Amino acid sequence: MAVLPPGRIHHVALVVRSIEASAVLWRDYLGLRLETIMDIESDHVRIAFLGVGESKVELVEPTDDTTGVARFLATKGEGFHHLCIEVGNLSEELTRLGIEGLELIDSAPRRGAEGPVAFIHPRSCGGVLVELIEAPGGPSWRSLGYPPG
Amino acid sequence: MAVLPPGRIHHVALVVRSIEASAVLWRDYLGLRLETIMDIESDHVRIAFLGVGESKVELVEPTDDTTGVARFLATKGEGFHHLCIEVGNLSEELTRLGIEGLELIDSAPRRGAEGPVAFIHPRSCGGVLVELIEAPGGPSWRSLGYPPG
Repeated sequence: MAVLPPGRIHHVALVVRSIEASAVLWRDYLGLRLETIMDIESDHVRIAFLGVGESKVELVEPTDDTTGVARFLATKGEGFHHLCIEVGNLSEELTRLGIEGLELIDSAPRRGAEGPVAFIHPRSCGGVLVELIEAPGGPSWRSLGYPPG
Repeated sequence: MAVLPPGRIHHVALVVRSIEASAVLWRDYLGLRLETIMDIESDHVRIAFLGVGESKVELVEPTDDTTGVARFLATKGEGFHHLCIEVGNLSEELTRLGIEGLELIDSAPRRGAEGPVAFIHPRSCGGVLVELIEAPGGPSWRSLGYPPG
């Protein structure tokens, strides 16, 4: 059993050719709140977060052709990339999921744009790439050096 | 612009080979609340809804090989199927999105398991099949014959 029920869908991530072009759909036509656009230089992507209720839609645009996301776009085209769920204690969840035999891409929390994150392989999640993010104030925030809230 | 900002991600739908097998991941390992399992005989599928915050994960299992969902499973395997967003007035949204030139699979609200729904073609949504559902109490609930709340 899970340590605690997960809190919410944190975001649904979509790979897009162009954040500007995609914002016409998600912001202008569907009415989501555009919250941030930022370059993640280390990942060679630009991302946008658009709010909807307690969740977000993340648009991920590759900025060159060197990354997995760029290959995803080149081979599969635009579309769904991953589902991110918020949990209370990411380290404990990863330990438990590892014991259950799930294939963890990240066996320990690492720094993400919005908090400590880890990915689980789609082979263990019915073909879906699942990201877990620790809720603000969780223990990994301090250990990964995020500024105190 | 949207008539009103959308309310929330209503659900993320995943095609699965077996709801029983998939529930081990989503309910037992990730801790989502299993809310309902039901047969939708007209659609030749069985579905499960698992709650997470204000949203749900929907598992869709084909019950025979005659449907689009069954062909999806046979050709692409298990994985993400569609993203459903809640709106206040579905008829007005569809009219507006049609005028904007989006390719609507359903040009008017139709009865869904959880309320009035309509699908937008992935060709208009960056490769993502998008479903819109009207929030409880909206005008299409009465016109489609749902029992009064």
